Amino acid sequence: MKAKKDIKIEIMAIGSELLTPHFQDTNSLYLTERLNDLGLEVSYKTIVGDEWDNLVLSIKQALSRADIVLAMGGLGPTKDDRTREAFASVLERKLIYNKKLLQKIEERFRRRGLRMPPVNKKQAYIFEDAKALDNKKGTAPGLLMDTGAKIIILLPGPPHELKPMFDTSVWPYLQKLRKKYTARRTLKITGLTESKIETLISDLYPQEPHIQLTILAYPGQIEIHLTAHSEESLEKSKETVHGLEKNFLNRLKENVFSSAGEELEEVVGRLLRLHKNTLAVAESCTGGFLGHRLTNIPGSSDYFLLSMVVYSNEAKIYHLGISEELIEQHGAVSSQVAAAMAVGIREKTHSSLGLAITGIAGPDGGTPEKPVGLVYTALAWDNGTDVVKNLFLGNREIIKYQSTQKSLDMVRRHLLKKPQSKEN
Amino acid sequence: MKAKKDIKIEIMAIGSELLTPHFQDTNSLYLTERLNDLGLEVSYKTIVGDEWDNLVLSIKQALSRADIVLAMGGLGPTKDDRTREAFASVLERKLIYNKKLLQKIEERFRRRGLRMPPVNKKQAYIFEDAKALDNKKGTAPGLLMDTGAKIIILLPGPPHELKPMFDTSVWPYLQKLRKKYTARRTLKITGLTESKIETLISDLYPQEPHIQLTILAYPGQIEIHLTAHSEESLEKSKETVHGLEKNFLNRLKENVFSSAGEELEEVVGRLLRLHKNTLAVAESCTGGFLGHRLTNIPGSSDYFLLSMVVYSNEAKIYHLGISEELIEQHGAVSSQVAAAMAVGIREKTHSSLGLAITGIAGPDGGTPEKPVGLVYTALAWDNGTDVVKNLFLGNREIIKYQSTQKSLDMVRRHLLKKPQSKEN
Repeated sequence: MKAKKDIKIEIMAIGSELLTPHFQDTNSLYLTERLNDLGLEVSYKTIVGDEWDNLVLSIKQALSRADIVLAMGGLGPTKDDRTREAFASVLERKLIYNKKLLQKIEERFRRRGLRMPPVNKKQAYIFEDAKALDNKKGTAPGLLMDTGAKIIILLPGPPHELKPMFDTSVWPYLQKLRKKYTARRTLKITGLTESKIETLISDLYPQEPHIQLTILAYPGQIEIHLTAHSEESLEKSKETVHGLEKNFLNRLKENVFSSAGEELEEVVGRLLRLHKNTLAVAESCTGGFLGHRLTNIPGSSDYFLLSMVVYSNEAKIYHLGISEELIEQHGAVSSQVAAAMAVGIREKTHSSLGLAITGIAGPDGGTPEKPVGLVYTALAWDNGTDVVKNLFLGNREIIKYQSTQKSLDMVRRHLLKKPQSKEN
Repeated sequence: MKAKKDIKIEIMAIGSELLTPHFQDTNSLYLTERLNDLGLEVSYKTIVGDEWDNLVLSIKQALSRADIVLAMGGLGPTKDDRTREAFASVLERKLIYNKKLLQKIEERFRRRGLRMPPVNKKQAYIFEDAKALDNKKGTAPGLLMDTGAKIIILLPGPPHELKPMFDTSVWPYLQKLRKKYTARRTLKITGLTESKIETLISDLYPQEPHIQLTILAYPGQIEIHLTAHSEESLEKSKETVHGLEKNFLNRLKENVFSSAGEELEEVVGRLLRLHKNTLAVAESCTGGFLGHRLTNIPGSSDYFLLSMVVYSNEAKIYHLGISEELIEQHGAVSSQVAAAMAVGIREKTHSSLGLAITGIAGPDGGTPEKPVGLVYTALAWDNGTDVVKNLFLGNREIIKYQSTQKSLDMVRRHLLKKPQSKEN
């Protein structure tokens, strides 16, 4: 197929399990991103089972409306795997036995000390004018056929087989259809509301068609996905996206915690290491989630000393040494107790920083004065304490997540010597 | 449309964002489950953007191959929302302005103290012979049209609008096409390998077409989904599924921790409360994840006293009182240290049970003797200690998860007075 102006692409996910409530196609997200990198857009996605008539009809319709049909799944050895046969039927091509393919499949079994079961022989059949695609991670070879008018690509369903096969065999082939060079950058932001971000950057919204901006808002984190295309070169698109990134960073400043794909706990870990600081945490309503996130980063033992999950008042009093009077006077969910927890865990562990969370994660336990979602996050250091009062929305899980996000961000802003954000 | 033998259903998800790498249709999983409850299967799923020609062609092809087309998304007020118009064009129907619909939309804005923006007026248009579906959670009304030959259903995209609309307006309507009554049951298992489970139940595999069995295996948890259909009554299908459940439980016994949809931490919480037991935990490689899971259950403060995340050797020694010699002699990742942690946290908190985890979550820190994935889980009670040596596979996140799963399961088996499982 030659490059042309408007190439239509259809991705087909084939497998009856994908028509049940239990399974979902996720491969297409990966393929879409890689195709977008070439400036190619996906027009249709179809999911169909292994029922012959439905499968054949879907393939017919896909070939009638798309220039490139990328199908995945149904290349296995069982009699339910009919993708190869259904495409052969629609394309009126014969499936020819290929000795070299069989040898490769047999070899794969042999390396694992096994003999190839006879059913796998059917994976060695391919259209005469198609190219077999090597499968380094499984037995099913893929297939690529360019009829001049259409390109047909068949890939195995398992993601760990599909991705390397696409990257090594399909993507390089599709280069000839490349319309654009694509560069991406994702700014991750916390501590600013979505509407505040939009106010800050609205006049920077790219108007040019070769620039795309997508804002994804999650509780506690907002992502700005910047994509730049260039018809000339990758360098050009990188230049554009870096220029954009710079403009956005100028506006959003330290509210952007990463533009290199890092998680907040990674950034915090890097800063702690850089400043040779250690951290200990006292958690109430998050129950250990903060320590869990901190220790998701390999090597976190360099700076993370201890987390105490003092879920009950008794635990706060007996194990962290919070005064009973303080809790009686202000309640366990209060600015005063949050500060005392941060100071307490810091003193107990001699850490550089003490971080604490106390709040009401719900669904029960809220009152008009102290509603579900009220969470105090506190940070103590050698000569001071910061406490932020937060009111988070969402269910228990989301409130717990936002509490950890805010407290991690307090460490980050402190180490950057920036003021704390009061926004959620 | 009348009930007939082979009803083909197509679910269409409409929206250009669903053709990017960032968004995925999840509504169709919910709709599929609800349709399956009626004995109706989904034959095709299509995802298409708001580009007019592509949308119109997709609708045409859907109507040519399916008896019921269930489309979602693209019913909003913007000019990119074209689902209504595209269906009208394909069906050659006029969109008629409906005063009552407009009043409902205006009323919705009014209740929130707002005036309806003029663009929303287009949501009050509907085909003459179609039924508008009330939207209790948003402005976009849905649409249901039965042409005699086909049923067309248009639903809004946001899940919190789509689900109640489907349940209150569409599902009752589709009852007339009901082919079967469906009952489901999911057995959740931990502490048995998938192959062991298959050996135990292989002769119970249902051969009858009205029974379905799906096994979903995750690291640390295996689920057996049982579905029974009956053409007679819901009672009949429930009877069948309960009979199956009983047979499976007889084989799998206490390895099944729930057949009522509960999470393991819920079951453990229920048992702790039942036995009036309290629990304190000492975590090393899980970093707080165990406490996080325990406190995901509302009311867990009734039995969960404290978690200490003693990530470093120093923390184990200074804060939990583990002897320095013991760590030097056996290493922090050892049966002896795990037991001492469980005993230590129990003594410190006077809890009924002490639970501990120490291991190597990777990716670094493994040795030939103590590889990544080696995790000791220990439980201490008033007159004993149990320690299990585990070798988990997977990345850091998966090893952390399996460690919490195994330790929760130790509490469960202990309270059920069953022996600990040594399997992963």
